[in-house]
Amino acid sequence: MTVTNRTANVEQWGIFELELQGRAEGNPYLDVEITAQFAYNHRIVEVDGFYDGEGVYRIRFMPDVQGTWRYRTRSNLDALNGAEGTFTCVAPASGNYGPVRVCNTYHFTYADGTPYKQVGTTCYAWTHQGDELEEQTLATLRSAPFNKLRMCIFPKHYLFNENEPALYPFPCLSRGSSTWNFGQILKGEASRGWSFDLGRFDPAFFQHLERRVADLMALGIEADIILFHPYDRWGFAAMDAETDDRFLRYVVARLAAYRNIWWSMANEYDLMKHKTKADWDRYFRIVQERNPYQHPRSIHNCFAFYDHAKPWVTHLSIQRSDLAQTRIWCEQYRKPVVVDECGYEGNIQPSWGNISAEEMVHRFWEGTVNGGYVGHGETFLHPQDILWWAKGGVLRGQSAPRLAFFRRILEDSPAAGLDPIDGVLSLWSGFPCAGQHHDYYLAYFGRHQPEQVMVHVPEGEKYRGEVIDTWGMTVTPLEESIMDDAVVQLQGKPYQALIMRRIY
Amino acid sequence: MTVTNRTANVEQWGIFELELQGRAEGNPYLDVEITAQFAYNHRIVEVDGFYDGEGVYRIRFMPDVQGTWRYRTRSNLDALNGAEGTFTCVAPASGNYGPVRVCNTYHFTYADGTPYKQVGTTCYAWTHQGDELEEQTLATLRSAPFNKLRMCIFPKHYLFNENEPALYPFPCLSRGSSTWNFGQILKGEASRGWSFDLGRFDPAFFQHLERRVADLMALGIEADIILFHPYDRWGFAAMDAETDDRFLRYVVARLAAYRNIWWSMANEYDLMKHKTKADWDRYFRIVQERNPYQHPRSIHNCFAFYDHAKPWVTHLSIQRSDLAQTRIWCEQYRKPVVVDECGYEGNIQPSWGNISAEEMVHRFWEGTVNGGYVGHGETFLHPQDILWWAKGGVLRGQSAPRLAFFRRILEDSPAAGLDPIDGVLSLWSGFPCAGQHHDYYLAYFGRHQPEQVMVHVPEGEKYRGEVIDTWGMTVTPLEESIMDDAVVQLQGKPYQALIMRRIY
Repeated sequence: MTVTNRTANVEQWGIFELELQGRAEGNPYLDVEITAQFAYNHRIVEVDGFYDGEGVYRIRFMPDVQGTWRYRTRSNLDALNGAEGTFTCVAPASGNYGPVRVCNTYHFTYADGTPYKQVGTTCYAWTHQGDELEEQTLATLRSAPFNKLRMCIFPKHYLFNENEPALYPFPCLSRGSSTWNFGQILKGEASRGWSFDLGRFDPAFFQHLERRVADLMALGIEADIILFHPYDRWGFAAMDAETDDRFLRYVVARLAAYRNIWWSMANEYDLMKHKTKADWDRYFRIVQERNPYQHPRSIHNCFAFYDHAKPWVTHLSIQRSDLAQTRIWCEQYRKPVVVDECGYEGNIQPSWGNISAEEMVHRFWEGTVNGGYVGHGETFLHPQDILWWAKGGVLRGQSAPRLAFFRRILEDSPAAGLDPIDGVLSLWSGFPCAGQHHDYYLAYFGRHQPEQVMVHVPEGEKYRGEVIDTWGMTVTPLEESIMDDAVVQLQGKPYQALIMRRIY
Repeated sequence: MTVTNRTANVEQWGIFELELQGRAEGNPYLDVEITAQFAYNHRIVEVDGFYDGEGVYRIRFMPDVQGTWRYRTRSNLDALNGAEGTFTCVAPASGNYGPVRVCNTYHFTYADGTPYKQVGTTCYAWTHQGDELEEQTLATLRSAPFNKLRMCIFPKHYLFNENEPALYPFPCLSRGSSTWNFGQILKGEASRGWSFDLGRFDPAFFQHLERRVADLMALGIEADIILFHPYDRWGFAAMDAETDDRFLRYVVARLAAYRNIWWSMANEYDLMKHKTKADWDRYFRIVQERNPYQHPRSIHNCFAFYDHAKPWVTHLSIQRSDLAQTRIWCEQYRKPVVVDECGYEGNIQPSWGNISAEEMVHRFWEGTVNGGYVGHGETFLHPQDILWWAKGGVLRGQSAPRLAFFRRILEDSPAAGLDPIDGVLSLWSGFPCAGQHHDYYLAYFGRHQPEQVMVHVPEGEKYRGEVIDTWGMTVTPLEESIMDDAVVQLQGKPYQALIMRRIY
């Protein structure tokens, strides 16, 4: 038995990886089962291993407690069965706060208790663009304000997305057309000519994908992995149930140990003509059952919502442009609401891809003050069709710096999150307010331009006010502290916010 | 019998007025009935007269056909009964197109067939401000882009509206407090101290009101007369049914002959705690039955809509800020939709009174491209509380010049009106389009900033394109004509529109 434990000391929420040499003959993807049990004292966690090609099998595990862990493999292949050992889980390195989970009903936290305030962006097909552009995307992300990136596993067939990827998740048997065709997507048809060996995976594809997930992890960015999507010319949107399920288990086995993983069952699931509601329920359950770390799980709509009340949905991943509804969705589902797609800053034809920077930034603030989180994207016409929303590259718009400012404000807000609060802003004013009662209030005035606003802070409490110009990125402290019923002077221009912090 | 026919020759849709001397003793408002029948050939129109104080009774009539009209009065007072005569109705003077009526389901026309494209504004209490300010308001309106003004008969008790009017519709018996009190409005309570002789009217009040209606008529502005409203400290919002009905008949008798009259049963009818649904139905029927000219009739909501499907409602008068809904309301009610209140440009506290100029203008275009008409208002803080929306004065905002530009575009659009049209703008684009099929299309891109848009004009037809900057007020003709499926180049900035006119 050849077992390599590359990682005798593993940081908490890092990746322990076991490499085993086994059989390359036959079809190990179908024939070989391998799992391992990881134990910390009496707690046992079972995880799936996976075949990585050329006779190599791997098991990955993310320990969540510091101390000594034992493990033992199980396999229907003798060469892989019964491998045992231990490793030590040590303190996390700087910048490692653990995986993100839901907390406080509507919000998120890292496992170590650090609040996670989602400021997302979208580069659906960025890992299919080749190293040069992918490295540029990473360089952009390094100084961008985003801490979550939505990205597809499968390549993307869509407007502005006609380039063939270098790799596919499955071995390619024959190649077909690369021409963009919208009718095809609506009908859920694959192009003729393409065929793949769906009984096997291409390890090189997944090794590349993992590298990019790790790159994001190093940047402190959550990878919101989209498992299925309808933008397909290769047939990946119309695989049979057995293939879908094996694909899910393989992806989870490979990726779940990365602490920055989020699972999105699909993008625009309701456009996928070959899937039923029962399919989506099953996918959720497979991911939930195979993934021991309970990374966030969601599903993203085009038109119709999936029933987000189902227990395997951790949070809502919404496509809608009316951010004021966020508050309603929070109340309906009692889960965090992430409006991952509210329109993209850009100038392309479709209305979802040409909102102004002002509007993009406005939607972040509006979603936030209604208790949710929002996602960004950019869709500017480009001579080589390099649109951030799909391929990454560089940011060309004007919203990103404002979202950096927004994120600083957000991270300076209460750890418990911003919950909608009534009665502090005068009902008469008609504006939304969020915060933590008796501690912090954020009011946002959007496209309105009040010169003043009436507030009612709780009796006997005193607050320090700051007027925020969300577009101009300024914070103007108010000279007088705010008590009881007060008329607060604002700046009489659009896109203002007011923060009130309790003076203790 | 003393009968004065001041107007032997009356222009079509002008006012014929008969003045009769009668009894001043007793209470003529309650005791004396006077009507007249006006006949053109075999057609007979019956109208109510009214007592104008000091023994003077008047009958007003708006003839709608040129030629000889006969009349004969009827009264329970001998001195007023049986007065007969004729007058000649002559061609209308320049600028007199007759009263406005509904045409083509969703639109309006003047009686002479000239299209009426509503561009409204709001000065609720402008006739209660004294001559100096009222004259200033008229001077402002002379060069403003508005062709309809919403105005209340009753004085207004509200935020920024504490000044006492010089006159009341009823003789004042005792005076009370003038202090603004919002709770009072919510409860529908009048201030203590005020009392009026509700069995009589004050002719001076109505003479003043009529003069202002005539001033608007001279400026080509429709007077959208609000019959009841809840902003009351005098008790006018809580009169009994008999008084309400007598008030309505008196107002109709005095004002209906002015061709620029529209009737709005109420502003924010749903805030009037003392009225039932049956009351509103009855008011509508009284106005419909007593007014022979069938001026437009509507009722304006705060929150809940009245059932605009009822037959006496000629058009919807809506308060809502989401103008995209206009299309839905059109389809639901199959009547013209006027969003009279979508928010006001300004900087006061309440969210309805502090939208930006950009937003105000945007709402006009959005309502229009969804098949409706929109209203303007301004609410800028002022040291003497002179806010345009209530008191008139001068316009301080930046939307009015853009609405003048908008009105020129609208008046240059098809006489039949702008109806929502699907399929000309690519579905893919997601933008609304309105016009007259095979002749004229208007697309509006709002806060979006597309660089180009795909259109599908009917086969074999050719169109001339113009890109409109609705904020910058420019019209840029496109060099190439538009045929079949075409990608039209836009300017990649917010608040653009595209007009396509058929080339025959």
